[in-house]
Amino acid sequence: MAKIPQSHPRRKSLISRKTIVEATKNGLLADSAMIAHGRGEAFDYLLGEKTSDIAELSIKESAARLKLAKNPVISINGNTAVLAGKALIRVAAVLQCPIEINIYYRTEERMEKLYDFVKLQRLNVSKEEKPKNWAGNWEKTVMAVKILGREEDGRIEGLEGPRSICSAEGIEKADVILVPLEDGDRCEVLVSLGKEVLVVDLNPLSRSAKMATVTIVDEVSRMADLLLEYVIANTSKEAQWDNDAALKESLRIISNNANK
Amino acid sequence: MAKIPQSHPRRKSLISRKTIVEATKNGLLADSAMIAHGRGEAFDYLLGEKTSDIAELSIKESAARLKLAKNPVISINGNTAVLAGKALIRVAAVLQCPIEINIYYRTEERMEKLYDFVKLQRLNVSKEEKPKNWAGNWEKTVMAVKILGREEDGRIEGLEGPRSICSAEGIEKADVILVPLEDGDRCEVLVSLGKEVLVVDLNPLSRSAKMATVTIVDEVSRMADLLLEYVIANTSKEAQWDNDAALKESLRIISNNANK
Repeated sequence: MAKIPQSHPRRKSLISRKTIVEATKNGLLADSAMIAHGRGEAFDYLLGEKTSDIAELSIKESAARLKLAKNPVISINGNTAVLAGKALIRVAAVLQCPIEINIYYRTEERMEKLYDFVKLQRLNVSKEEKPKNWAGNWEKTVMAVKILGREEDGRIEGLEGPRSICSAEGIEKADVILVPLEDGDRCEVLVSLGKEVLVVDLNPLSRSAKMATVTIVDEVSRMADLLLEYVIANTSKEAQWDNDAALKESLRIISNNANK
Repeated sequence: MAKIPQSHPRRKSLISRKTIVEATKNGLLADSAMIAHGRGEAFDYLLGEKTSDIAELSIKESAARLKLAKNPVISINGNTAVLAGKALIRVAAVLQCPIEINIYYRTEERMEKLYDFVKLQRLNVSKEEKPKNWAGNWEKTVMAVKILGREEDGRIEGLEGPRSICSAEGIEKADVILVPLEDGDRCEVLVSLGKEVLVVDLNPLSRSAKMATVTIVDEVSRMADLLLEYVIANTSKEAQWDNDAALKESLRIISNNANK
C-alpha cells in the first residue's frame, strides 16, 4: 500500500488499515480479520471517526468497574493486539491485572506468534515514560503484567470445543473482563456465568453489543488511550448503568450522521 | 471457515464472506479486498441486506442506459468478478457488450489469474439454460462476450500511472460504463470525460457514490441478478435522473434501520 500523506483527513483510519493488512501477512490474524476490520471501519465512519460522549461515559464506567474488580482481566484477540496492544498493556499495568490472549480461530502457531508479539509490546511499553499522573516504578510494573492464553488450563462453562478454552488464572477466574471485538455467543455465556463483560464493538446492533454488561461503541485504539486516563484518574461507577440506553444513543448518532 | 447451516438467517452474506476469503487465498484479490468487503457488509447490514425500492429503480435506470448506449462496457475488479462475475457475464451477453477486467492494484500476475477465472465463468455461463424471456442462441452469444483488460492499449485521460490504464476497445471507447465497487478518483475522471458512469456501491456517502451518473446502492450480486431481468425486459430511462435524491433515500433507509 502507498504511503499515507500527513495531511490526509482519514490518516488514522488508513494507518490502522495498513497495520491490519501487514499483520495478516505476518500470520498474526485469522483469515477473516480483515473483513471484521472493514465492518468496523464502516461503522466508525458513520460514527464520525471520533469518540462520542456516550462512548466516553461507557469507557469511564468500564474503568471504574475494572478498578473495583477482584480479578479483572483484559482479553485480547489478534486485531486488538495489533491495533491497541500497547495501550492495553499500559492499562493492565496500572490495574495490575493480566492480559489474556484469546482467539476465536485458535491454532498453536498463531497463538505463539501473538504471544511473542505481545511480549515484545510489553518490553517496549516498559521502556516508555510512565503515564501522566501515575506514580510508581513503571518498568517493573509493566514487566509484571502477565501474558496469559497459551496454557489452555481453563474452560468457559457452557461453550463447546476450542471456543471454550481459556486461562484458569485469566478469564476463568475473572469477575470483570474487558473484551474488545468479542463474539456474541461467548459474550452471552460469560455474562450468564455471572461475570461483568465490558465489550468494545463499533456495531451497536451486534449480539455482543446487546449482551454485554457495558458496551463501548468506539474504535479500540481510541478507546484504549482514553481508558488509560480513566483507570489512572479517580472515577466512580454509576449507581445503575443502562446499557440499552447507551446503545440507543450510539444508534442515534449513526442515524443522524447518515441523514445529515 | 466452518460450514454455514442452510437455516442461518444471514446465510447469503456468510457465503459471500467465505467466497472472498477463498479468492484472496487463491491470489485473485488485492491485499485490502477483504477490508473493502467488510465495509460493504456493514452498510448492507444497515440496509437490511435486501434491495431497496430506490436501489431497484436505479438498477432499472442503469439497464435502460446500458441498452441505449452506443458502446456500453461492464468494468469488473476482483471482488466483483468473484461475487457477481457470472451474473454480469449474463448481462454482457444480453447487451452484447464486452467485460473489462480493470483492477486498482494492477499486477500482471493477478490480471492473468482474473482473466482465467472470468474466462472459465464465461464457459460455465454458456452452458447454462438461457435466461427467462430471452430468445436466441445462448451458448454462442455468451461465448461472443469479449473479456478485455489485459491488452492495456487504452488510457483514461486525466489519471496518472497504472490507474490510467484501460482497454481501448472497452473503457476508453465506452459512452456508458457499469463499474461496481469503483474508486472515487477514477469515477470523477470518467464522468468528466463525458461518459455515463453507473456505479454500484453500498456506501451512499462514498465519493464514487456521489460522483456517479447513477448510483446503485445495493450488494453487487443481488444487483447483478436484477439487472439481468431489467436488460431483458423493455425498460425506459427516466426523463431526468436525480441521483442526489436517490442517495438521500438510501441514507434515509440506513438512518431508519439504525434508529428502530
